[in-house]
Order: sequence, then C-alpha cells, then structure tokens
Amino acid sequence: MTTMETTVLENINSPSDVKKLTIEQMHILSEEIRKGILNRVDKIGGHLGPDLGIVEATIALHYVFNSPVDKLVFDVSHQCYPHKMLTGRKEGFLNPTEHPEISGYSNQNESEHDHFMIGHTSTSVSLVAGLAKARDLKGENYNVIALIGDGSLSGGEAFEGLNNSSVLNSNFIVIVNDNEMSIAQNQGGLYKNLQLLRETNGQCENNWFKAFGFDYIYVEEGNNVEKLIEAFNKVKDTDHPVVVHIHTLKGKGYEPAVSNKEWGHWSMPGLLSQNSSSNGTVPECYETITKDYILNKVKEDKSVIAVNAATPGVFWWDEEFRNKLGKNYTDVGIAEQHAVGYSSGLATGGAKPIFGVMTSFIQRAYDQLSQDLALNNSPATILVYWGGISSADCTHLGLFDIPLICNIPNIVYLAPTCKEEYLKMLDWSVEQTDYSVAIRVPTCNYVSTGIEDNTDYSILNKYSLVSRGSKVAILGLGDLFELGKSVKEELKSRLGIDATLINPKFITGVDEELLNSLKSDHDVVITLENGTLDGGFGEKISRFYGNSNVKVLNYGADKEFNDRVPLDELLTRYHLKKEMIVDDIASII
Amino acid sequence: MTTMETTVLENINSPSDVKKLTIEQMHILSEEIRKGILNRVDKIGGHLGPDLGIVEATIALHYVFNSPVDKLVFDVSHQCYPHKMLTGRKEGFLNPTEHPEISGYSNQNESEHDHFMIGHTSTSVSLVAGLAKARDLKGENYNVIALIGDGSLSGGEAFEGLNNSSVLNSNFIVIVNDNEMSIAQNQGGLYKNLQLLRETNGQCENNWFKAFGFDYIYVEEGNNVEKLIEAFNKVKDTDHPVVVHIHTLKGKGYEPAVSNKEWGHWSMPGLLSQNSSSNGTVPECYETITKDYILNKVKEDKSVIAVNAATPGVFWWDEEFRNKLGKNYTDVGIAEQHAVGYSSGLATGGAKPIFGVMTSFIQRAYDQLSQDLALNNSPATILVYWGGISSADCTHLGLFDIPLICNIPNIVYLAPTCKEEYLKMLDWSVEQTDYSVAIRVPTCNYVSTGIEDNTDYSILNKYSLVSRGSKVAILGLGDLFELGKSVKEELKSRLGIDATLINPKFITGVDEELLNSLKSDHDVVITLENGTLDGGFGEKISRFYGNSNVKVLNYGADKEFNDRVPLDELLTRYHLKKEMIVDDIASII
Repeated sequence: MTTMETTVLENINSPSDVKKLTIEQMHILSEEIRKGILNRVDKIGGHLGPDLGIVEATIALHYVFNSPVDKLVFDVSHQCYPHKMLTGRKEGFLNPTEHPEISGYSNQNESEHDHFMIGHTSTSVSLVAGLAKARDLKGENYNVIALIGDGSLSGGEAFEGLNNSSVLNSNFIVIVNDNEMSIAQNQGGLYKNLQLLRETNGQCENNWFKAFGFDYIYVEEGNNVEKLIEAFNKVKDTDHPVVVHIHTLKGKGYEPAVSNKEWGHWSMPGLLSQNSSSNGTVPECYETITKDYILNKVKEDKSVIAVNAATPGVFWWDEEFRNKLGKNYTDVGIAEQHAVGYSSGLATGGAKPIFGVMTSFIQRAYDQLSQDLALNNSPATILVYWGGISSADCTHLGLFDIPLICNIPNIVYLAPTCKEEYLKMLDWSVEQTDYSVAIRVPTCNYVSTGIEDNTDYSILNKYSLVSRGSKVAILGLGDLFELGKSVKEELKSRLGIDATLINPKFITGVDEELLNSLKSDHDVVITLENGTLDGGFGEKISRFYGNSNVKVLNYGADKEFNDRVPLDELLTRYHLKKEMIVDDIASII
Repeated sequence: MTTMETTVLENINSPSDVKKLTIEQMHILSEEIRKGILNRVDKIGGHLGPDLGIVEATIALHYVFNSPVDKLVFDVSHQCYPHKMLTGRKEGFLNPTEHPEISGYSNQNESEHDHFMIGHTSTSVSLVAGLAKARDLKGENYNVIALIGDGSLSGGEAFEGLNNSSVLNSNFIVIVNDNEMSIAQNQGGLYKNLQLLRETNGQCENNWFKAFGFDYIYVEEGNNVEKLIEAFNKVKDTDHPVVVHIHTLKGKGYEPAVSNKEWGHWSMPGLLSQNSSSNGTVPECYETITKDYILNKVKEDKSVIAVNAATPGVFWWDEEFRNKLGKNYTDVGIAEQHAVGYSSGLATGGAKPIFGVMTSFIQRAYDQLSQDLALNNSPATILVYWGGISSADCTHLGLFDIPLICNIPNIVYLAPTCKEEYLKMLDWSVEQTDYSVAIRVPTCNYVSTGIEDNTDYSILNKYSLVSRGSKVAILGLGDLFELGKSVKEELKSRLGIDATLINPKFITGVDEELLNSLKSDHDVVITLENGTLDGGFGEKISRFYGNSNVKVLNYGADKEFNDRVPLDELLTRYHLKKEMIVDDIASII
C-alpha cells in the first residue's frame, strides 16, 4: 500500500519544521492531519473525535513551545495523534503498512517527544508536577505543559494534582481541552462551571481554576490556530501555575463525528467508510442479555439502578437504553472511585446498584472496593467487562482484575461460563443483601447451553463437578472452561485419560471438600484462567494442594505488560492451547 | 475501674435526649464530652485534636437532625468520638473497662446511628451520594449529611463525589469541618481557598464550592453551638445540594493539642498524663536510620526528595527533619494517587524521589502504581511502613500490600530482614534508574547484624541462601526471617532436622535456580510472610513447586478483615509460631 499524499505534512519531520510554517500552511497542515487521522482510524480503528478536535492546538503548541526540551504530556493520551504526526511519526497515519508500528497512546519508546507511556485518564497534572519539581531541584529551565481534557478532568488523580500544583512557585502550564464531552456526556458540577466559563468568555463568577489559585486564560476559538498561538505565547515561560482553557470541537472536520460525538469518540476498523452510526442488528451476546435483564428488572423494581463511569459504549448501553432507564441510570463520568463509593451508598440505602466497568479501569478504585464496599459487605453488583488476554495496548490490558479483586476479603467474584450461569449469578447478586459481588463477564466465548442453572450461589465457593474421571482434573475458570473441555477431549484421544472436569464458578475461594475428594485418585490438577497467574485463582489451588501428593499446573498469563502482541503469540507463550497442555501433562504423569 | 462522673452526659442515651437540652446544658455537655475524649485517649490512645474540635458541631447536628432516619456520615470517621458519646456509646469513653468495646471509627455493628465501617479518608461524599439516590429512587424522605474535614477534602474520591453530587436535584448536605489542618499541615490550592473564605467570612471571589454549583453557608464560629444550630436549621430539609463550611479549632479545650496541632492529632496511650509533646530520646530503629540516610543523601545530591501524603509522623519525619530538607521535601496532603504520579514525574525528570507511605494507604494508589509508575519503569523508591499482622482496627490493616504490589509487572518489591540490608537496598534503589522499587520497612523486629551487605540488587530475584541443610527449607520473608531462624532451631532440637534457611529478599519474583536446586534433597519447603496469603509471596512458591514432589506449606494471614483482634490470637490462628509450624511439618514428613 502507498503513503497518502500530502503537501505540507510531507515536509514536517519534527516540531522545528512546524515553526517555519505560515498560518496559511498551518491551515493546510490541519486538513492533512485530519485526513491522516481518518485514514488510520478507518484502517485499524482508534480514537477519532478527540484527535480531530485537538489538531490546531497541537500545531500551535509545537509552534510556540520547544519540544522535547519543553515537556508536553497528553491526557487522555489518546489525543496525541496530531502530536505523533508532527514528531516524526506521520507514516503511522499516512501509510497503512506503518499503522501498527505506532501506538494509539503516548509512548516514550517511539519518540523523545513523549515522556510517559500512559493510556488511563487524569494522570497528566501529577506527572507534570513531578517533572516541574525535578526541573526546579536541578536548576533547569524549561516549560512543562499538561494537556488535559476529553473527560480527564473528573478523575480524582487530576484533582489531587491540580490541588497540589496550583501552589507551585514556578513554571507550570495546564491546557484544559474543553470539547464539551467525556467519552459520553460530561457529568458533574465542574463541567457546569466549564459551561458557564464558555458562556461568559471566561468571566463568570466562581471560576473553578481560579478558586484553586491558578492564573487563567480563556480561548473561545480553540480550533483557531492564530488565537491559540497568541494564548500560548502569553503563558510561555510563565513563572507561576496557569490554566489555558480552550474550547474545541470534538470531531471537527468529520461531520458524523461532530453530530454524534459519543459515536465518534472511538471507532472500530472499517466503520468510517460505511459512514454510518448504526451497528445494524446484532446477534445475542453478553451485552444484549445484560441490557435486557436490567431493563426488565427495573420494570419490576424501581430500586434497581445501572451505574457506569463514562464508558457506556463498552457495555452497549446506548442512548435508547439509557433513556428507558431514566433516573435508574447514573453515569458518573471518569470517576471510578466515586462509582464504587456511590454503589456502596446505594446498596446501604436499600437500592440495587449494578456497576458496569472495564477491567482496566476498575484498577482505579482498589481502595474503594476494599474499604467502601467489601469491608461493609455492601450488596452491590459489579460487572467486569473485557477481562482476559488480548492484543491490546499495554495501557489497556485486561489481565489484572483477578488478582486485584479476588484477594480482597468478603467480595464474591464469580466467573460464569455460559449465558444461563451468567443470568442466574446476576439475578442472585442483585437480589441478595449479604455480599459485595463482582461478575467477570466472559469475553472470548458466547455459550448458551439451553440448560437452566439452578445453583444456589449463596452457598459460597461451591464448584460445579461437571464430569468425574480420574488421574487428571481440569479446573476451567470462566471463559476458559471451553478450553478445559477441549483439553479433556485431547487427554482422552491422545492419552486415553478420562479426566475430571470442573467449573469453579467462584474465583474468590476454594471448594475444599471437592478438591480433597480428588486426592485419592488424581495425580495432576490443572487450572486455566484468562488473566495473569501471579496472585490469581490458580495459585490458590496450588497452595491448597501444597501439602499433598497432587501435582498442580497453573495456566494463565505471565506477569508482564504486553504491548499489542498478537493473541495467538500470547496463547502459545502461555501454553494456553490444548495440545501444549496435554504435552505438559504427559511429561509429568 | 469506675465510670467518670458527668452531670449532663449521664442522661444522654440517644440523640433524642440531646434535643431536650438548653444551650447552657449543651455547654456543660461539651466539656463533659471533652473530658471523655481525653480520658479514653490517655488510657488506650486514639485521635484527639479532631474530636476535641468537632464537639459542638456534633451536638448541634444531633439537636437539629433526626438520626438515624437522617443519615450522618463522618469523614475522616476518626472524628466520630462525640457522635459515639451521644448515640449510646458513652461508656466507651467514660469507663476504662468499656474502652476497647467501642472502636475509634464509624461502625454500623455498634449502632444504628453509624452507616458504614470506614477509616480511610475522603469517602463520605460518594457514600452519601449513594444514600441520597437510594432515598430518591425509593421515594423516601430524609436528610443526608456528609461531614468532611480534617484533611479529607484533598483525596481524589472526595473530589469525584463533590463533582457528582453538586448536580443532584434533591436533599444533600455537606458539612465541611475546616480546622485548618490535615494530619499535618494542609497542602494545596483548595486550602488556600478555604483560608480566603475564612478571611472574608465566606464572601471571597471564586468560591471553590460554589464553582461546583453548591449552595454555600459559612459559619466562622464553628465551636459555637448556637450559631451551628442556626446554620444547620437553615439547611435542614433543603431540596438541593448545600455546603456548610464551619471553622473549628482542632484540639479545642486541651491546650497542648491546640498549640501543637500535629502532635495532638493522635496519641499513644499514656502520653497525655505526661503532658509533654516530646518523645525523649529514642533508640536506633528503622525510622531513625531512614531519616539519617535521607538527610545525608540530600547533602550530597540535591535531586533527592522525600515525599509523603499527610502522614509524616508515621515515619517520624518531624519538623526539624522537614526543615532541614527544605525544598527537598514534599507533603502532598491526603492524596496518595498524586504522590505516586508525582514521584513518577520526579523520576522521569531526573530527580530521586523517596515516597514514604503507610501500607493501608498505598491501597489508594493501585492504578498509579501500575500505570503511572511501573508501566514506565520510573525509578522512584517507595517505602512501605507498618505492613504486617497486627491488632489494628479493620479499617487500618497492614495485610494487603504484598498482594497489591507484588503482582504488578515491573515493580521490584524488596523485603529486608535487618538494618544492613535495608540501607543497602535503599541506596541501591535511590541510585539506580531501571526499576520502580518498593521496600517493605520491617515492622516487628529491629535487627542489626553488624555485617555489611554487599548484595548487588540489580540481579533481580536472587535469594540469599543463609544456611544449606536438607529435607526442609524455610523461606522467611522480611521481618518473619527471625521466625524462620527459630523454626530452624526448633526443627533441629525436636526432629533432628538440619533445615535450609533462605532469606528471599525479593517479594516480586522467584529464584528458580535456587529453588530447583532444593528439589533433590528437600521434601518440604515452608514460606513465612507477614501479610495475607491470598495473592502473596508464598503462593508463588507453591505454584513453582506445583509440578514437583516438593511439598509446600505457606504461612501468613488468612484473607479476612480482622478487627482489633489481639496479636497473639492471630498468630495462633495462622500457626505463625515455631512450635505449631514444626508440628505441621512433622505431620507430613
């Protein structure tokens, strides 16, 4: 495939080239950058609206400041596509063969113009506060700039950072990219303050940033490169903390992403060329049955409430769903700590919260899971989506939720293997009042057995003995139960072993009675889990059998931050294939 | 021992009794409550200044509102002593034999007037937002009140909660207890705004709470019960979110706690009767050698910086120490997320941060440890204090840092067993630039071997083979290495076994070479760790030996929230005694 043709961008190989441009050339450059964004996102997917909106600001930043001496940190760093195009990485956008080489997030391994590998939100102010203090301790002299927006302001770390950095006595610049959106709609009083500031051209009473002590500049035309250059020149080399609040248009230059900003936030490959905001009809899956369950439940019980933190699209909680729920729906914005504390309060107050969250983001609320929720046995339900081994960017891995959640006392973390179990677990969780419950929504298979699940999940840590054999027992957790079934077949066909197959269902505990009963006629127990082994489910089984003659093999991911590694390569690395597992068993039996 | 005598308090058995009092009686009650606080804290230790300051506000709250129908949530809940005295628990303060029955934190198992078991900060607004929404969904009608202060405002969860709750369309009351302090001095722009509000009687420009959209009332005389009653009556039954900002005096009524508010924040038993703010000279310990190390290091390297989050007293980082460090010291306030992000930024900028933190509070920054720090391999040093099994309140356990930290990729978590190792690890960590390092400062022993440690800690996961024996190998991690030594002696004397003794040093990895070498002549390996077993160090060893004939016994704490259980009872429950361990070994060997 060939590189997209450009006229101005083709001559931009580093920020120093940006500094030579005329305003007219910058306008052309803006359009070429937008074409590059659309080109890449259509081919390999990625963030769209945030990057289309930040084009002029990025050009102006590189025109005014002197990267990499001046240090620019993007937050959410999914807004860094234009920055990448101006800092030697344009082929990652223009040339399809180069697309996968360049990540969708800030990455210091790609360029000296990036300073952190960061994909979670609300981090920039704290990180830049550290850079500023290091600079001052070392007697150095440069600008530090946190570019924060697209919903990032609402996360607690951003607030802690703003609170601490507003009192620094040296150069510290925060660019607030106000595109009127989080991933979905903005939530909360802070965003009402931003709205007031927009409506008053930055002059309203009770300016939230000034209340912290920041100096403050407002730029209404946040997609006007001349105005931005003027504003950035004003704050360059400042000797105190200053906020530049710029009002930008999310999705600018691509009408479908402007008229439906939530849809245009992120795109799967190929959607743009279809130029449609509809996904068409979809087959039944965990997302659809969850929505149906919640809608039906709310009809019969007005205390049921669906909660999420700015990512309703992950669970397919679309506008129609949200509208149907009405007051029985809360989006807290990017604020997972609040979401967990709020859920605990809801449960304590007698409501029935169902908090949907991505595995990578539940990490942001460990202390709240432990203290606000588990310590109080608050009967909230947490649905954890997208857990498991994948070829995701290293900033968005789904590997760590099992160690994170399953070692907190009191929480019941469940791993369904099929539709019927999932719905039974979900309904049990919503209706019971004794435990905080999390359910790991399966990622890699949608299985419906057609057999009703009559399990009483209030009997904790009771595994399901699916098939009793001998010699080898297979514990296939959650969506790796299907792999467990295929290992059983492979053991039969290759080694003639009639293995025991177990569906543990409970991640957070050990079925001692069942596991003890295996000791008499089993030599090997294997565990399969779709996450990192360290601190996970399998190690509990290893510990349990530690004082016995039963050997245990744990299968799952290594403790590592994979970065866009092909899934099949990972499954091979971790021996998560039936042939490899049976080879391992054969070697020790 | 006999109950303290009181005249008004003796007739207060529930909030309804408070409602019958005259203002004059409330003044007497205030003094009696203060005597109760001092009585308890002198006998069994606890929080002092925060409770002395909140006496009148608590009386006024119970006079105006109708607990438990109206729901009052304290934050930090260590301010709840007066509340406990007014809600049927006064004997926990007046009667020494009853002191231990009543916890120092909010606890719904004690009283219907408490709604959550909470000891960490910054949780109240989110919890109360959940209560408010549950109330509204169920069509109920009562007041919800979050009382937040004494530093709690600066934590990210509080901000997320304020942002979300300021836009609620129903009753929501936040009482901001502004006593001008966190645990140590307040930090950040928000507290400068509170100062401006105090100086202007609540009338300054850019009111931080109004910027969120809260209605706002200021009460300068926050220890004047009449003024407080007047203010609370104004907001009672409000139909929208309102902040009542009250200015109180931390330590009021006990001069030493007023003149030295940081000292008076919390007290060990017996200190008050000495009536002294000096601890006298102390023997060498991990706290003193750490301070000496940092002071010496800063003298030779101006890029070294000590960081903490509002708890300098925990590390004995007293005023003299802080003054000597000057700009090489940062207290971020109660803001652990920022502290970790800031440390990552410092390290990336070429400085050498040393972040001291309590094990129970590092939980508040899991995502920052993972994303801001470990993913970037930012060479910061984190000193984790007070880890281990203890008789602490369930809200402040030191059991979970090992599972929390040791399962994050890239982080090197070290467990020194003595002074010499600790100082070597600390210096290695500060000087290296490849890894994010945490060090678990030993809690239960101070050991100095006098033997210089020449280990090169850049060779990761290399355990120290202290003594090579056979049959049984003991891995004694960190401060349980001493227990390991005594188990070795016991094995020799009782069973005649010459056991192998290993000091693992690295919590985060397995020394495969050494562990493999044990297989030929060892039947049992035991692991000892001072924390919860689930997700911890020992399970990694169990997993490693899973496919071998070596049996493994893991010793450590169960996965549970203990609540003020005597240490010896816990050690017995967990078999963490040499006799019990040798019994266990004898039973399987």
